[in-house]
Amino acid sequence: MSLTAHKDLHQFVQEVFLNKGFSQEHAIISANVLIAADLRGIDSHGVARLSGYVRLIDKGRINPNPSLNFTARKKTMGNLDADGGIGLVAAHFAMEHAMEMCQVYGSGWVGIQNSNHFGIAAYHALKAFEIDAVGFAMTNASPLVYPAGGRERMLGTNPICVAIPGNNGREFVLDMATSAAANGKLEIASRSNKSIPEGWVLNAEGQPTQDPNALKSGGGLLPLGSDADHGFHKGYGLGAWVDIFSGVLTGANFGPWVPPFVSFLDPAADAPGKGIGHFIGCWSLDGFSDAQTAKNQLDIWIDQFKQSKPSDANKSVIVPGEPERIYESQRMKNGIPLNEVVFEDLKNLNTHLKLNSKLFV
Amino acid sequence: MSLTAHKDLHQFVQEVFLNKGFSQEHAIISANVLIAADLRGIDSHGVARLSGYVRLIDKGRINPNPSLNFTARKKTMGNLDADGGIGLVAAHFAMEHAMEMCQVYGSGWVGIQNSNHFGIAAYHALKAFEIDAVGFAMTNASPLVYPAGGRERMLGTNPICVAIPGNNGREFVLDMATSAAANGKLEIASRSNKSIPEGWVLNAEGQPTQDPNALKSGGGLLPLGSDADHGFHKGYGLGAWVDIFSGVLTGANFGPWVPPFVSFLDPAADAPGKGIGHFIGCWSLDGFSDAQTAKNQLDIWIDQFKQSKPSDANKSVIVPGEPERIYESQRMKNGIPLNEVVFEDLKNLNTHLKLNSKLFV
Repeated sequence: MSLTAHKDLHQFVQEVFLNKGFSQEHAIISANVLIAADLRGIDSHGVARLSGYVRLIDKGRINPNPSLNFTARKKTMGNLDADGGIGLVAAHFAMEHAMEMCQVYGSGWVGIQNSNHFGIAAYHALKAFEIDAVGFAMTNASPLVYPAGGRERMLGTNPICVAIPGNNGREFVLDMATSAAANGKLEIASRSNKSIPEGWVLNAEGQPTQDPNALKSGGGLLPLGSDADHGFHKGYGLGAWVDIFSGVLTGANFGPWVPPFVSFLDPAADAPGKGIGHFIGCWSLDGFSDAQTAKNQLDIWIDQFKQSKPSDANKSVIVPGEPERIYESQRMKNGIPLNEVVFEDLKNLNTHLKLNSKLFV
Repeated sequence: MSLTAHKDLHQFVQEVFLNKGFSQEHAIISANVLIAADLRGIDSHGVARLSGYVRLIDKGRINPNPSLNFTARKKTMGNLDADGGIGLVAAHFAMEHAMEMCQVYGSGWVGIQNSNHFGIAAYHALKAFEIDAVGFAMTNASPLVYPAGGRERMLGTNPICVAIPGNNGREFVLDMATSAAANGKLEIASRSNKSIPEGWVLNAEGQPTQDPNALKSGGGLLPLGSDADHGFHKGYGLGAWVDIFSGVLTGANFGPWVPPFVSFLDPAADAPGKGIGHFIGCWSLDGFSDAQTAKNQLDIWIDQFKQSKPSDANKSVIVPGEPERIYESQRMKNGIPLNEVVFEDLKNLNTHLKLNSKLFV
């Protein structure tokens, strides 16, 4: 595990995207989103994905130089055609359009079609803080999750993010996949040969299992709630909401047709929409009631929850978004830890693309 | 179990509210919301609650004749002060304001403070279908739910509803509490002396239990996800989002201060806000992309999910909102089944208020 300064890593990511034909602006934005994930401790969505994006570009599945086409359909709603470009960039500009509408009308919403993976939802939602607005972001993703009562992969882990600004950097940031567990948790268990809790995955026969390889062997992830007794129809409903907003309503693909992130799997030939879809927007904080009063009340809310009685006397109740900010401040100072696999992956990119980054000297 | 025609029941509910000082308009709206719950099979939120509302009115905790005060804070956002009135009515008018904004600007949002329980969220969200918009509704409620990693009641079962219109009455309607199980399920198990699954509730010592009376004995409901392994921080995050939107940002109460529905418990003396809060609004379907195309795509989505492989070969995968519509069409035709307890409760109201309803002859 090596520690890399986030600025150096940012520079490298930018160079990779520039090398692949991105404009300077798009390369910087893409690096911003990936590095934000690593800083926030969401290692699965940061530079660990860089070579995956590169493979999609190489295969012609990501357009490195898209013409983003925004159509304002209503005063506060619009549709962005990402022209097959990277979602990291499309979602960024979609949020800028949403924020412009929000500043005039109090809220703004953009559906994005013909896009690719947009990184962590929180990056895009948090952007709304620039105008003192509540940020909202969701995206669909390639199918890994069974519906409640089903045994066919129909939904991605489809995240929802809501980011609410408070006083002096205090905030509420919920950024959650709508499955019971993320794919990455199965990978970690698989690598260390550990069993997983029941309720994360069903095997290919639709049976409960503790096998961390069950997903790879044709099973499916379970929605949040895990089973009928524990409300998995709710997790399914949330994932479906994300799918419909991101794909069905925007003109993107949805359900089983959402194109895979991995380049070795081909997109469906009979796809009913274009690319992956996202839905992004914001509400002016000052629209709910007086913004300063709202922030003061949020302070009370946060204090009250943090001071509430914990299950474990040595821990305290956590406010959503708090752990990510702790990671961020630590990693801004100390650097981003890269595990060996990721480090090698980046090093290979450096060699292959002849970038001569100082990171790998 | 007796079957009662929904129109007769509606008439009776209306008479009860009129007797308690509601205007004709408010009595009709209130009856609309309660009967909609019974028709949709959400028996816990229909006429079963009528005497509860009456007790709150009698105690001066619900203002029967409120002056609803709407403040347009932005072109698409406003705040409604419900003047201590019933939530059934406040939420109805809030959605009307949201729909007016939506028709001009493409979306509309109203935070409601100083309100009381608003019935089923789906009633309010579904109203947006009148203008071909996606409806959204959430409300906070009195604290019964522990935060993830906590053992103090900090959140209500705080529902979220999203209703998306399709072609020819097809639709997607997610209306879900953010706890693993609703209070009503514990009641049912308690009455029949059955144990409940682990993961619904922790006892007063913060330990897992299968005792259906654990909540009554000072325990707390668990958020959707049930435990750390199964993502209960997500259910907690969703419930917290609802609480912040409904209470913190609108000027209503939040967290442990949300006033109880039951009249025998007094509201907190140190409450930081006014009454209960809701958040309601809508997005024009035509704002995401062309509305007709979106509906056609939703048809494909619904068909695809309904036809996907089920876990149980004798069942099929359900689209959120489908079971409620089946109940509704059956109960519109056959009447609403009232169990003995609810029937007696209504009969007592009839006697007590001298209404001479033909239902109890």
